[in-house]
Amino acid sequence: MPLSVSPLAPKSFPPMPEIAGVRFATAAAGIKYQNRTDVLLVVFDPGTNVAGVLTSSKCPSAAVDWCRTHLPGGVARALVVNSGNANAFTGLRGKTSVEKTAALAAAAVGCAPSEVLLSSTGVIGEPLDADKFEGVLADCASRLLAGPWLDAARAIMTTDTYPKLATAALAMDGAPISVVGIAKGSGMIAPDMATMLSYVFTDMPVAAPVLKSVLADKVRTSFNAMTVDSDTSTSDTLLLFATGAAAKAGVAPLASVDDPRYPAFAAAVGKVLLDLALQVVRDGEGATKFVTVTVTGAVSDDSAMRVARAIANSPLVKTAIAGEDANWGRVVMAVGKAGEPADRDLLAIRFGDVLVAEKGERVPGYSEEAASAVMKSDEIALAADLGLGAGTAIVYTCDLTHGYIDINGSYRS
Amino acid sequence: MPLSVSPLAPKSFPPMPEIAGVRFATAAAGIKYQNRTDVLLVVFDPGTNVAGVLTSSKCPSAAVDWCRTHLPGGVARALVVNSGNANAFTGLRGKTSVEKTAALAAAAVGCAPSEVLLSSTGVIGEPLDADKFEGVLADCASRLLAGPWLDAARAIMTTDTYPKLATAALAMDGAPISVVGIAKGSGMIAPDMATMLSYVFTDMPVAAPVLKSVLADKVRTSFNAMTVDSDTSTSDTLLLFATGAAAKAGVAPLASVDDPRYPAFAAAVGKVLLDLALQVVRDGEGATKFVTVTVTGAVSDDSAMRVARAIANSPLVKTAIAGEDANWGRVVMAVGKAGEPADRDLLAIRFGDVLVAEKGERVPGYSEEAASAVMKSDEIALAADLGLGAGTAIVYTCDLTHGYIDINGSYRS
Repeated sequence: MPLSVSPLAPKSFPPMPEIAGVRFATAAAGIKYQNRTDVLLVVFDPGTNVAGVLTSSKCPSAAVDWCRTHLPGGVARALVVNSGNANAFTGLRGKTSVEKTAALAAAAVGCAPSEVLLSSTGVIGEPLDADKFEGVLADCASRLLAGPWLDAARAIMTTDTYPKLATAALAMDGAPISVVGIAKGSGMIAPDMATMLSYVFTDMPVAAPVLKSVLADKVRTSFNAMTVDSDTSTSDTLLLFATGAAAKAGVAPLASVDDPRYPAFAAAVGKVLLDLALQVVRDGEGATKFVTVTVTGAVSDDSAMRVARAIANSPLVKTAIAGEDANWGRVVMAVGKAGEPADRDLLAIRFGDVLVAEKGERVPGYSEEAASAVMKSDEIALAADLGLGAGTAIVYTCDLTHGYIDINGSYRS
Repeated sequence: MPLSVSPLAPKSFPPMPEIAGVRFATAAAGIKYQNRTDVLLVVFDPGTNVAGVLTSSKCPSAAVDWCRTHLPGGVARALVVNSGNANAFTGLRGKTSVEKTAALAAAAVGCAPSEVLLSSTGVIGEPLDADKFEGVLADCASRLLAGPWLDAARAIMTTDTYPKLATAALAMDGAPISVVGIAKGSGMIAPDMATMLSYVFTDMPVAAPVLKSVLADKVRTSFNAMTVDSDTSTSDTLLLFATGAAAKAGVAPLASVDDPRYPAFAAAVGKVLLDLALQVVRDGEGATKFVTVTVTGAVSDDSAMRVARAIANSPLVKTAIAGEDANWGRVVMAVGKAGEPADRDLLAIRFGDVLVAEKGERVPGYSEEAASAVMKSDEIALAADLGLGAGTAIVYTCDLTHGYIDINGSYRS
């Protein structure tokens, strides 16, 4: 079943720069899909550091287990990603499969298996036959190029209707530094650690512990601030690679979060993470509206985040948005069910610029027409102020439509 | 938009007995709906005791606030329920409205306003004009009858496609005792205290604190064990009334939970609560499949309940069921995201009688045909055994279909 491109897809992507120290190739291994690439091999120059965040699922995929074992080493020479099969809930065969895949990649690249990171995405519970990678990875290793990134982003798609790419540039010690990221995901999206799959690359020399800090600082407001359907994947993986190639241009290593250059670097990575996260939301299965839920006035930022998630995950709020119904009563309901401190009589709700309710009731002179006009847009801002404290949070989501039912009721991704 | 009757509706109801001490009447007050009743007045003989459970929402309706204030008294002479307007998030006007409604009912019945209990269900945020009850309640009070219960159940419906009624009978001290309950609800259903609205009546003489214990004992496995869409209403109310009329037949008052007759009485009420709860699930908005989710082997019953809810509330599980897809990988995902102790490699999953996965992978000889055959039924049992402990829970739910989107994307109930 070919899916038509999301109406919320970005109209274009900026040019994606090459990242010195990163080369890749893709292949069609026939894992599940016909007539498309489904394997990505990325090879890193020696000296590349890595950090990552992985799903909090208690039923993680075999590839997530592999990454959790090897990420603490902080070094990476290769990354293998396949689409079409998640290699999740595949028992001992899943473990054997990732070991064999890592060994094949290590042999093709000339590194230790522990320096290979792995991800798989697609159907859960189907054994993944690592023999499919036999030859394929060696062939990829013979064709490595520094671009185009679009090919890399395409090879990791499942129900995605468009590839996801983002970039940021900054100057460090007088030299240009680039950050490039790719991601995939459009269903089973309510990450509590990262999205389905996302990989971010930079030529900045950065120590692995600092990379870890950057992710810890920036994931909360990007990948962890989005939800398509409240369902957390078994395979969520976000990896941040720093090749250090810019050291040759005189860029000093970023070895500590106290380095005065840290905020600028973290901000550049954060920009790429948020850009990718929003692209994932915009490709939410069946999405026709992009929704920003802002909660202010909560007792803490964490409390604000839980209220924002309750609104963003409510099927009744999401279906009302799909129907362009300014049904703010459902927002009240969602605030009320969140289980967080809230006082009905202090609550204010806005749809776009239209204040619809405050102090526990509809505003005087409420205009259904004005609120309905906001709902016609394909970008909708919902805001709830709880009036209790200074806690704030923003969550990004999409509407719940017939398209979601079509995709998930009849299609095993 | 008239909704067609749920395909999961009960084929018939048993005869509903009259409850001595309970009389009621319905009326069409024109609150929102045309050509149907929307007000129910129930009048109780003096001596009637009551207990209730109310929504845990932080944004409760004005009627819920009223009940929370007056339920501790434990006595009831009247109940007024309207459909079409929830009188929720209506500020001071909502409070004034319930006070006036209680005063009108008290005058019509001849009791104190504090002996009147109130519920409202329907659209949130619209002020409810209590003037609509002027005359209507006095007229109802002049036409009180002990039946038919079907009329009472019909007057409180909103998006319900059929009325919900249940009954149980038992013998106490040689005399027959009856329990009758009615309920409404089909969306915004994930009660954490009670359903949208449910009222249960008995002629057994029972002290109010004992009624409270009965509800505490039986709500967890009935109304709190169901979910349609994970959205908790602002108006959830469950009230249990005991008229005590059977005392005239020689039935001794049930004054303590240590009374040896308590378990039999609680069981009869529990049977009615579960029956009503399942009728609500079977009328879940857009439902085409009735699903029982059983979790065993959890570290505790509470943990099992949270895992069962994660499965039952997962949009991906619910859409797969709608599509008759035996997508047990999504059950693995839901177990994994629940945040409860779970070990992938001990997990076993059954669809109906078909064991599909155990010990962290698909079973040898797995038959997709056998699993798919289970999904064709309109009653589906999903079971997950976590293999960790003795905790168990059952949650009842329905599938997520185009019908849900139709109802909630284009219809303000």
